[in-house]
Amino acid sequence: MTNRSYAIIGTGALGGFYGARLQQAGLDVHFLLRSDYDYVKQHGLVIESPEGDFTLPQVNAYNDVNQMPKCDVVVLALKTTKNHLLSELLPHFAQNNSIFLILQNGLGIETKVAEIVGDRQVMGGLCFVCSNKVGPGNIHHLDYGTITIGEYFAQYQTGQITDSLNKIAADFELAGIPIIMTEDLLLARWKKLVWNIPYNGLSVVLDARTDRLMANPDTRILVEELMREVVAGAKSCDRIIPDSFIHNMLDYTDKMKPYRTSMKLDYDEKRSLEVEAIFGTPLRIAQEAGINLPKIGMLYRQLKFLDMR
Amino acid sequence: MTNRSYAIIGTGALGGFYGARLQQAGLDVHFLLRSDYDYVKQHGLVIESPEGDFTLPQVNAYNDVNQMPKCDVVVLALKTTKNHLLSELLPHFAQNNSIFLILQNGLGIETKVAEIVGDRQVMGGLCFVCSNKVGPGNIHHLDYGTITIGEYFAQYQTGQITDSLNKIAADFELAGIPIIMTEDLLLARWKKLVWNIPYNGLSVVLDARTDRLMANPDTRILVEELMREVVAGAKSCDRIIPDSFIHNMLDYTDKMKPYRTSMKLDYDEKRSLEVEAIFGTPLRIAQEAGINLPKIGMLYRQLKFLDMR
Repeated sequence: MTNRSYAIIGTGALGGFYGARLQQAGLDVHFLLRSDYDYVKQHGLVIESPEGDFTLPQVNAYNDVNQMPKCDVVVLALKTTKNHLLSELLPHFAQNNSIFLILQNGLGIETKVAEIVGDRQVMGGLCFVCSNKVGPGNIHHLDYGTITIGEYFAQYQTGQITDSLNKIAADFELAGIPIIMTEDLLLARWKKLVWNIPYNGLSVVLDARTDRLMANPDTRILVEELMREVVAGAKSCDRIIPDSFIHNMLDYTDKMKPYRTSMKLDYDEKRSLEVEAIFGTPLRIAQEAGINLPKIGMLYRQLKFLDMR
Repeated sequence: MTNRSYAIIGTGALGGFYGARLQQAGLDVHFLLRSDYDYVKQHGLVIESPEGDFTLPQVNAYNDVNQMPKCDVVVLALKTTKNHLLSELLPHFAQNNSIFLILQNGLGIETKVAEIVGDRQVMGGLCFVCSNKVGPGNIHHLDYGTITIGEYFAQYQTGQITDSLNKIAADFELAGIPIIMTEDLLLARWKKLVWNIPYNGLSVVLDARTDRLMANPDTRILVEELMREVVAGAKSCDRIIPDSFIHNMLDYTDKMKPYRTSMKLDYDEKRSLEVEAIFGTPLRIAQEAGINLPKIGMLYRQLKFLDMR
């Protein structure tokens, strides 16, 4: 049995689900909460999932990061729209030899975290999961769950599967969470954007689920055009995504159940949109390499406009 | 006093307003109607306008183009979304020496009309007018009214201010309608698109009036980027629109009363959108000249998606 301890920074749809799974598997987990703190402190967490519902009547709940133990692994599961808080939340753990695992969308966050925590190990994880918080401490897991994880090396260089990465992967697998390990975190992040940029963006701007975007011939073409711009962005970072990947993503989405994207859910619930992490940073990274992505740029501005409401 | 007769094809916000003004000035005007035929035949037209309300208790109303006299001037004032009807509506007049005046939005319609009517004079007019049909035979004119008119020469070559153009201009001026005559109809049409493409398109996609599009820094940039693509489209037809024109359009829109664009009105009223005339044809014309307009292309696909609802 592992003896690694986990701090979950942000106990929402994502952090709540994965943290609860880790605790259920017997790991030592500590949850940072804000609005749900009182409720969860008293009642714990309830997870509803097609893989089995379960309740954790008692969890280690905190509303102040400085009261948390210096855990071995710090899992960042906030929405990126809260990332202005990172410089308050993370230094507490950097005093220790904690490993930081960033389960957020988009590009560039590992670089920011590495700046804040200094010479510590930083890892990134891309979650393919449908899960919603339906009430305080109540998380509804709908489908999927795999995390692709990779270690962050300065400037997103490729590297090795380290011993620490293997150990963290083993903990998640123990908790029933499928893990894919990658030596190229940046490539994995760009690949996820191939899906996230067109579907998240267009679902909000056009008020549509994935099935309607795929059924209409114009938005289907537009989805593919946006995917090609993401591939051009990846190429500006020397990461090659083959054409077959685009076709696979289109096929995969054709076969998916009609899906309201996470950004559309945020929009409908009047939460801030993760526009900078998913659109702004990739655009700027490509721009710095001299590559202009006009349609992603247009979607970015449309979303920023809608996010202002 | 002029003795030219006018056929108004499409007695809506535009055709009803200008046709009523011509009749009020003493010209011989004949109105083609569809849904409002019975009402207008019986009750005539009512125009409300800040320049003075007026009623025409009796008008020459028709619901069948073949019953109309062969007027000297045929004014096409349908929405372009009805242009599949042109090959039924126009040949009746082409038997005569009628002049065809196209008061529609967008590009390329004169070319289509010239194909249908053969060796007849075709003119184009761009209406800067805010006017709505608020009920059967009841038109509410809100502001502006100037028409820029020019003769169509094959492939939109530039030409002269012809005698016929002068005479038609004189009729409209007699009716109190300010007229600007141009020797370059294509340039005038591209210039109008500098305004129409960004504001009509974004107002529908982002559910916004002009004031909000101008107040938000992202949409303001996007408006200007779209304007620059229109200028590039015009250049692909060897028409040069100077930078100062863009600045003038932005200034002009800043100073306008908050405005719901005509395409947004159509969308809110669940009418078909003039996507092909305003977006599709300009895109294709630029494309044929080897010029890609990516942001206009994206807006075009977004609008076609929304138009399907």
